[in-house]
Amino acid sequence: MLKEQYMELALSLAEGVKGQTSPNPPVGAVVVKDGRIIGMGAHLKAGGGHAEVHALAAAGTEAAGADLYVTLEPCSHHGKTPPCADLVISTGIKRVFIATVDPNPKVSGKGVQKLKAAGIEVETGICREKADQILAPFFHFIQSKTPFVTMKTAITADGKTAAYTGHSRWITDEPAREDVHGIRHEQDAILVGVNTVLQDNPVLTTRLPHGGKHPIRVILDTHLRIPVTAKVIENKEADTMIVCGKEASLEKEAVLIEAGADIIRLETTNINIPLLLKKLGEEGIMTLLVEGGGEVNASFFQEKAFQKMLIYMAPKLIGGKMAPTPFGGEGLATMDESIPLKFDKVEMIGPDIKITASLKEG
Amino acid sequence: MLKEQYMELALSLAEGVKGQTSPNPPVGAVVVKDGRIIGMGAHLKAGGGHAEVHALAAAGTEAAGADLYVTLEPCSHHGKTPPCADLVISTGIKRVFIATVDPNPKVSGKGVQKLKAAGIEVETGICREKADQILAPFFHFIQSKTPFVTMKTAITADGKTAAYTGHSRWITDEPAREDVHGIRHEQDAILVGVNTVLQDNPVLTTRLPHGGKHPIRVILDTHLRIPVTAKVIENKEADTMIVCGKEASLEKEAVLIEAGADIIRLETTNINIPLLLKKLGEEGIMTLLVEGGGEVNASFFQEKAFQKMLIYMAPKLIGGKMAPTPFGGEGLATMDESIPLKFDKVEMIGPDIKITASLKEG
Repeated sequence: MLKEQYMELALSLAEGVKGQTSPNPPVGAVVVKDGRIIGMGAHLKAGGGHAEVHALAAAGTEAAGADLYVTLEPCSHHGKTPPCADLVISTGIKRVFIATVDPNPKVSGKGVQKLKAAGIEVETGICREKADQILAPFFHFIQSKTPFVTMKTAITADGKTAAYTGHSRWITDEPAREDVHGIRHEQDAILVGVNTVLQDNPVLTTRLPHGGKHPIRVILDTHLRIPVTAKVIENKEADTMIVCGKEASLEKEAVLIEAGADIIRLETTNINIPLLLKKLGEEGIMTLLVEGGGEVNASFFQEKAFQKMLIYMAPKLIGGKMAPTPFGGEGLATMDESIPLKFDKVEMIGPDIKITASLKEG
Repeated sequence: MLKEQYMELALSLAEGVKGQTSPNPPVGAVVVKDGRIIGMGAHLKAGGGHAEVHALAAAGTEAAGADLYVTLEPCSHHGKTPPCADLVISTGIKRVFIATVDPNPKVSGKGVQKLKAAGIEVETGICREKADQILAPFFHFIQSKTPFVTMKTAITADGKTAAYTGHSRWITDEPAREDVHGIRHEQDAILVGVNTVLQDNPVLTTRLPHGGKHPIRVILDTHLRIPVTAKVIENKEADTMIVCGKEASLEKEAVLIEAGADIIRLETTNINIPLLLKKLGEEGIMTLLVEGGGEVNASFFQEKAFQKMLIYMAPKLIGGKMAPTPFGGEGLATMDESIPLKFDKVEMIGPDIKITASLKEG
């Protein structure tokens, strides 16, 4: 086996727990001795043991003299759990392979230092690109204290999100819609505008054949127009947070709280996206999926307040000069001013195309 | 070698001459004897020898007892050249492998019959799917007598063909724009509306580093508003056909003819797309690339008058509710009424995505 193959396995463990560790990162670890895997583990839940703890527990006393593969640098500080670097040293691990180093200033490089000081051989950077991709939301969150925002949109092959009449069910086919539920499962929160609630009354839960985690539902509703009978309020599978402006009715707020919703009242009249993201970050929301209509999307677009974009394109043409597109608002004036993306991945999902793009830096 | 490998070679020869054989099909042929290729050829130009003629000429007397691989059933009727089936028989070919059978009622199956009657072993259907793809424009043309229409569009990742201001240079990057010139090379004609001429004054020729064929330029111009100084008129690298309605000025027509343009005056006041395609078919135009703006595209969309669609998507967001999209007009009212496509191919061209789609039948 190559060290990259052991690291790929550790990365698979990390990918498997994406979305269930917030505000901690999804991390995987594998312990190898004499060509046999003697321990595997992942961080399963904030507050629970880190990946190294589970993997080393499985290895037991055999860990002495073994190699440890871990997707993120072991922590060296006391958080909710004792530092993993100390545990690694105490078990007698001989070599540590690390995919990527923690950018958290409290941690960065210190875990590696501690291991080296104890005489452990350390190599970093194995499969780093993939590890960085898996950890991107965590890195973004600890640096900005705001959620890593993914914008999702479904368009026809001519770029429309609905017919000119507003009719939009369905653009994409079953497999693409199921894929979206897989994406929801990985998110801490999902966001729509109140217009989507008023028009479609969606439940916004994760519906997958073998179960999935429900993200918190965030509804942007400046004037608290949401009916208390909306499915996102009546359905209790997930929490619902309603974000309003400072002038929204206090009576309506009380009714909604009574019905079980949380209210975030901003200090501004309208909903200011950077302020909103700061508040959501304070709530411990590390990842946010925006499934807005054109106007909600436009407000994130104007602030360049997103990191990733998922575009599902269906093989159909609807036409129409007035048919809506992913971003409403005025838009930018020239191609030179456009927001640059990078297409990370293009794949077929059933008859549809899924495009994964990220905001291009600089 | 497998028979599929020889046929792939014959298909490569056919692909190489795509766009230069109209109104004849691009066809390739390979002659094989004792495990060696003894002849190769393609139909190079209408009026010239068919693929079999060139390949058998290269083989010479060695053709006796050899295998012939040909991408389309050999013709059995006297056209501009004598029937290829007779030539194949007279050279003493032993076995003939054919990718696809000619759907032309004058030819279909008759070539195969003639070969079999002469005692030649015949097998059809090798690499048929790819052959049918290469021959799709020819099959469409001989059955409908109208050009095989490809619609080309370039969009941002949010489905826009320009900013709200109309600014659109450039959406895609250099490699995608060069790819479009490769597509133009393969076409008999390229079509735009007069608004594109008035706004951008393009020359509409094929500009490729190692040369390319220029398609005939077709300009839709109901009222003959095109200036006689337009680049598509002043530039003489390609012919220009201007299509107008019955009420367009006769004086302007004379001026344009004097300047070297051809005029097609329709019997209708406005430009009727099915009628236009019938006229272009009569001119021997087998393939047509529509590079229109939203309104020209909408008129083809309304008539479902296209077979293929090429979408170049750039990794940028321009936004804007009023920013133009590939199809103007009113559009269809519900997703159920949308025009169904099939995504045939998705590929990266530099930083952009190229999507090849075809109209889904039925």
